[in-house]
Amino acid sequence: MSSRPTLALVGATGAVGTVMIDIINGRESVPWGEIRLIASPRSAGKRITVRGESLEVVALSAEAFDGVDVAMFDVPDAVSAEWAPIAAARGAVAVDNSGAFRMDDDVPLVVPEVNVDQVANRPRGIIANPNCTTLSMMAALGALHRAFGLRELVVASYQAASGAGQDGIDRLYAEAAAVAGKGVGNRAGDVREALEAAGLSASDSPFPAPLAFNVVPWAGSLRDGGWSSEELKVRNESRKILGIPDLKVSATCVRVPVVTTHSLAVHAVFAEEVTVERAREIFEAQPSIRLVDDAAGGVFPTPADVVGGDPTYVGRIRQALDFPNTLDFFVCGDNLRKGAALNTYEIAESLV
Amino acid sequence: MSSRPTLALVGATGAVGTVMIDIINGRESVPWGEIRLIASPRSAGKRITVRGESLEVVALSAEAFDGVDVAMFDVPDAVSAEWAPIAAARGAVAVDNSGAFRMDDDVPLVVPEVNVDQVANRPRGIIANPNCTTLSMMAALGALHRAFGLRELVVASYQAASGAGQDGIDRLYAEAAAVAGKGVGNRAGDVREALEAAGLSASDSPFPAPLAFNVVPWAGSLRDGGWSSEELKVRNESRKILGIPDLKVSATCVRVPVVTTHSLAVHAVFAEEVTVERAREIFEAQPSIRLVDDAAGGVFPTPADVVGGDPTYVGRIRQALDFPNTLDFFVCGDNLRKGAALNTYEIAESLV
Repeated sequence: MSSRPTLALVGATGAVGTVMIDIINGRESVPWGEIRLIASPRSAGKRITVRGESLEVVALSAEAFDGVDVAMFDVPDAVSAEWAPIAAARGAVAVDNSGAFRMDDDVPLVVPEVNVDQVANRPRGIIANPNCTTLSMMAALGALHRAFGLRELVVASYQAASGAGQDGIDRLYAEAAAVAGKGVGNRAGDVREALEAAGLSASDSPFPAPLAFNVVPWAGSLRDGGWSSEELKVRNESRKILGIPDLKVSATCVRVPVVTTHSLAVHAVFAEEVTVERAREIFEAQPSIRLVDDAAGGVFPTPADVVGGDPTYVGRIRQALDFPNTLDFFVCGDNLRKGAALNTYEIAESLV
Repeated sequence: MSSRPTLALVGATGAVGTVMIDIINGRESVPWGEIRLIASPRSAGKRITVRGESLEVVALSAEAFDGVDVAMFDVPDAVSAEWAPIAAARGAVAVDNSGAFRMDDDVPLVVPEVNVDQVANRPRGIIANPNCTTLSMMAALGALHRAFGLRELVVASYQAASGAGQDGIDRLYAEAAAVAGKGVGNRAGDVREALEAAGLSASDSPFPAPLAFNVVPWAGSLRDGGWSSEELKVRNESRKILGIPDLKVSATCVRVPVVTTHSLAVHAVFAEEVTVERAREIFEAQPSIRLVDDAAGGVFPTPADVVGGDPTYVGRIRQALDFPNTLDFFVCGDNLRKGAALNTYEIAESLV
């Protein structure tokens, strides 16, 4: 790789791509020479300012990857599945934020502060970025695993609307405005009626139930045994990233009416003795974690205070009263930043 | 107790008291002769229609309990602590929905479909109604415990604003209106700024952080080890109701922007082998549970579809992939009905 390598961003005009450009613009310095913005032909020709320079978005094509050293993909699974191998064949390292390659044995799944050594091990020329829900707790779990040896994980998520993209954000605002103005009584169906009265049909929603003034215990698609794809991602990706193939995991994934930032209630069982004090020390020593844990002072992580930031926020750290070697805690992470664009970018930078 | 006993409702004009009157009015028949409404002197003289009869609210006093057979208390802890023993001394059985007596060894803590036999065992003349969060999962856990022997419980809650009373409901609507109209960007502090701009000061809120478009991992007051009082109630009350003094419990209690209906993600480990099929059969045989569990058809419990109803809704039932004898599931229960007024009323009816 040359000393000033070329970076490509595929999906430059999407929700995560937009956050990616914010991240690139916010860095003090970047190692890249050329930065190339790639998107669907529909968005080609659009101009976006990156680090003070107005760049023209080019259409996705095999030739668009010529001369590219690292190509980041923030596009749907099917687009990545087709185009990441093409980018790799043209000599780029593809860093893919879709679900297309995460469980491929020949594709490393990387969270830089946990397993950056894996980036060298990429026979297909592709490196995968984890699912946003898994990522939101991975920096914290990786740090604890190194110290205590993680054995079991029971997780419940509080996932934001933007995990379903811009459609999810728009839908939540529209629903909230329809309900907040009208108010709802204490009757089943009041929220659904308020949405219908506002012209918000259920079939137009990216969510399988109303999200405003509600919680929806579903994300992703149905898998065997009644598990959602999102819940299995938490299990399988955690095992792969942490390198614990027999990690015991149960996850319940729930969508909540928050715009951006995923939260998780984590119950983590370790091989060795843990204390809250040692866990705090470990979190404080990890630059990508912010410890926000003073319940007496009303201080704990909430999405509204975490969104827009890079770190994972950790709080409510408690030693389980009835389970040996076990910590219960609460984490919040911006699902568009560390949960998507930031981690992808950190993988890309780790390559140069 | 006479064949047409007298029922008193203390706290008749409060949030739970109002739901209680709805419940009494909605019953096909009631076993009571006189129904007496009692409240603070401020509300005395107010008239409320109960089963077609306009009743005058009387002020709380020792004499107000004369001739009362069963007195239900829907009032703050301190009011119950003072007045439930007075009612008992005057010959009434006090059924108390506050936290004042729940862990008293001489006061049974009752969920009728789980441990109705305990109502007879009341040396102080007082029976306690559990905390609403515990109650929301207790019908489901009691049924499973009878079949399989419950051993461990890891729970994360999604608790509604009305758990903090009418103030909580009003605050959530005001916050949601302030944010939904304006929208928020993806910056930390945007929600707080929107609330301040709308004149909603943080110090006026019953919640320790913004609740609209947010989740708040805190309910109750601080206890040893960083646990919240709400989390310890889930542990200690579950043990007492189910009669399992060594039940292992870890709970994380989180407030969500829902008006009414608490939800819980439950990970329950049993002594004996469990299957999803057997769990479904058990839930279907329990009249106070509604099984709502067809993920393929997008069918699962959500607060918006549960609020206003009596049953506990159970869905997302999965056999844990990595834990033996373990079920993961999601429950929703109306925290003002089964979680408070309904269970209190069911205890009262079980006495006659």
